[in-house]
Amino acid sequence: MRILAKDIYRAAADPGTESEQRSVEVAGWVHRIRELGGITFVILRDRSGMVQLVLSEAEKPNLTLESVIRARGTPALNEKAPGGAELRVTSLEILSRAAPDLPYQVNGDVSKTGLEAILDNRTLSLRNPKIRSIFKVQATIIEAFASYLRSQDFTEIKTSKLVAGGTEGGTELFEVEYFDRKVCLAQSPQYYKETMVSSGLERVFEIAPAYRAEKHDTPRHLNEYVSLDVEMAFIESEKDLIELEKGLLAHIFEEVSRKNRDDVAAWNATVPDPNLVAKAPTVPYDEAMTIATAEAANNKGGGGKIFDINPEAERFLCTWAGREHGIELIFVNQFPRRHRPFYTYPLDLGDGKATSTMSFDCLFRGLEITTGGRRQHDYNAFLEVLPRFGLKPEAMENYQTLLKYGCPPHGGFAIGCERLTQKILGLASVKEASLFPRDRKRVEP
Amino acid sequence: MRILAKDIYRAAADPGTESEQRSVEVAGWVHRIRELGGITFVILRDRSGMVQLVLSEAEKPNLTLESVIRARGTPALNEKAPGGAELRVTSLEILSRAAPDLPYQVNGDVSKTGLEAILDNRTLSLRNPKIRSIFKVQATIIEAFASYLRSQDFTEIKTSKLVAGGTEGGTELFEVEYFDRKVCLAQSPQYYKETMVSSGLERVFEIAPAYRAEKHDTPRHLNEYVSLDVEMAFIESEKDLIELEKGLLAHIFEEVSRKNRDDVAAWNATVPDPNLVAKAPTVPYDEAMTIATAEAANNKGGGGKIFDINPEAERFLCTWAGREHGIELIFVNQFPRRHRPFYTYPLDLGDGKATSTMSFDCLFRGLEITTGGRRQHDYNAFLEVLPRFGLKPEAMENYQTLLKYGCPPHGGFAIGCERLTQKILGLASVKEASLFPRDRKRVEP
Repeated sequence: MRILAKDIYRAAADPGTESEQRSVEVAGWVHRIRELGGITFVILRDRSGMVQLVLSEAEKPNLTLESVIRARGTPALNEKAPGGAELRVTSLEILSRAAPDLPYQVNGDVSKTGLEAILDNRTLSLRNPKIRSIFKVQATIIEAFASYLRSQDFTEIKTSKLVAGGTEGGTELFEVEYFDRKVCLAQSPQYYKETMVSSGLERVFEIAPAYRAEKHDTPRHLNEYVSLDVEMAFIESEKDLIELEKGLLAHIFEEVSRKNRDDVAAWNATVPDPNLVAKAPTVPYDEAMTIATAEAANNKGGGGKIFDINPEAERFLCTWAGREHGIELIFVNQFPRRHRPFYTYPLDLGDGKATSTMSFDCLFRGLEITTGGRRQHDYNAFLEVLPRFGLKPEAMENYQTLLKYGCPPHGGFAIGCERLTQKILGLASVKEASLFPRDRKRVEP
Repeated sequence: MRILAKDIYRAAADPGTESEQRSVEVAGWVHRIRELGGITFVILRDRSGMVQLVLSEAEKPNLTLESVIRARGTPALNEKAPGGAELRVTSLEILSRAAPDLPYQVNGDVSKTGLEAILDNRTLSLRNPKIRSIFKVQATIIEAFASYLRSQDFTEIKTSKLVAGGTEGGTELFEVEYFDRKVCLAQSPQYYKETMVSSGLERVFEIAPAYRAEKHDTPRHLNEYVSLDVEMAFIESEKDLIELEKGLLAHIFEEVSRKNRDDVAAWNATVPDPNLVAKAPTVPYDEAMTIATAEAANNKGGGGKIFDINPEAERFLCTWAGREHGIELIFVNQFPRRHRPFYTYPLDLGDGKATSTMSFDCLFRGLEITTGGRRQHDYNAFLEVLPRFGLKPEAMENYQTLLKYGCPPHGGFAIGCERLTQKILGLASVKEASLFPRDRKRVEP
């Protein structure tokens, strides 16, 4: 029976009573080979971690890095070995011999490898334990997102990514040849999640790809990303959504801390204290501008006024929140009407003009990770607002049906899964947090 | 504080000690209105179920079906009311008044509505509790799929759906305009899940859309579906995968039975006994042909020989399994080489020609719900086989890298989520099990 690398110490420390239990089998990839005085030390990598194999001359075949092997032997304590134990090999089988011309150094130092080289060699770079650890954290994020929402009575949905047109207007859409017509890849499940809320499910979430045909090639953009979408009925304002997201993020941070200790340590990262999430401030847009402007002045010795939540402002606001509230997490709400899509619920700040909205962004460690808000659920208000956004009611027949026949007050948000992963681990680019990232130039592997 | 419909009986039976606890609030959709001697009975629908509201003349506004309302009143036991209790309303607020020209009868009998009408009016038909129940079952399937695999040490992955070319060849692919080039929508995450297995994760799963540009318009085809993908390393043959799928299906059946009793009952469906899954037979392809042919002869009084696992054979084989093994679930393995993609692991049945493969299909209640098998992991065997499938090695550079540098024996399978949902509930068409199905003609809503 095969045992995992992580269990070798236990096998060595507690070999059992029968003599045959002394012999165990491991299987995995040859991560490192070191020769020392006629003895070969092999570090074997499996899904659980690493184990040192000790091969005497007799059992040593012509090993290459990354070959997949199965080894049988005696587990033994050795405080010099990684994990405090090793396997003294008695027999070894090569299951798949790796060619010796490895084009990417799997056991190399990631911090010394450029992003382009990592992505160009994705098939092999994903074998690097430090790189792989990003996606173990991401798996926990996805699981924790779903489990928290289920605990709050949300239902998971799966909606189509092929849509007749874009919800948010016609720009930045990828076109698909769909039999004898053209459709688009969905930018978000906006209409669908609103439909499902209004179906009576009330609380829904979706974990699915979303597409943006943006031409930017920056460390914060992906053309395809995993969108963690939430929508719920019977809210009063965006503040209900901010409360929900706080609970969600606290749970995600807690789960990553608990399940991914080694993965987080590999990146010298610190997961935010889940207990501090509740203390993250919510700041209206105008006030956020003032704070960002003041931070800019302090940081650069007299920066100009900041007029928008641009990437620079996102960084300043998070720095401010970290200093003043103990966590680099901040919710900015009440965005001006002109900054938000047509379906955003308007907010009158007292001038009778409803120039604001019940909307919010969540910024984490200098990056926007969420956009959300309450939606317009009133049919007449919806019809009235469309022309101001250059939209034609007749082109939005499904949206009309949704609102015309009874739609509860509702709202929602979406978290960019790769951005959250990036910021938890402190990765330089969001592309590092996508298994097979798509940007303007890259569609392979 | 709002309570849910399902909690009205408890509120009525145990009103608490203080007088103010007698008053509760509910919110939801007006599902049905009935007038009886000056009293109005409203059936209110929320995410938990239905509750009867009793309105005297004074509190009765001009209600329309599907309007969203909030009602406050006194819960009271009434054995004639659905669930044994009702709310005697003291105040009522309309949150969203539905227009009276409802184009689809939400509270109608689904069995009397044609599929086209249901799909044409999807925004509203999804409000029908029986239709909605399909997707509550589907949510459980997705959750149970993931939780079972996590319990077996699998890691969830999310891979790109935009690919440079199709893994299985160039047919049946949707093309996407990707900036200044064309890419395709992925038919399956085949290469990606094999890459992640080979990265050292060993065991991975993915829940994501998959695309097939098939022109068929049948009750068993969707052009976009949710693929429940599994891949694992260090297997001996497809039999390891069949064992895994049996455990997985048993867990899914168990969870649906436990969590979706009412949803299953709404369709008069019976979830298979989880304990019977282990008894599902595994039958080699040639033997399956013989069984199907014999069944055809018995059923139609002399049907001809069946030469392929076509839809008719799938039905016959499941009927046979149900009769002989107590469950309409059967695994057919050892498909001929010519029926399987290039990456399938060959199997020599004794004639020295390796004309068979370590592959399988899973048939459930007359429908193929899974295709899977062991994959070729040997680089040289891979290079040798490509030309026989009309494929050029140089066009498969990433696949080459995957196999050339150490790849463990591995295999996997994919379950069609909508097909499994369909067959658990006994739906006539797989389209009923897709929230927003895509077929050759349908891309809306």
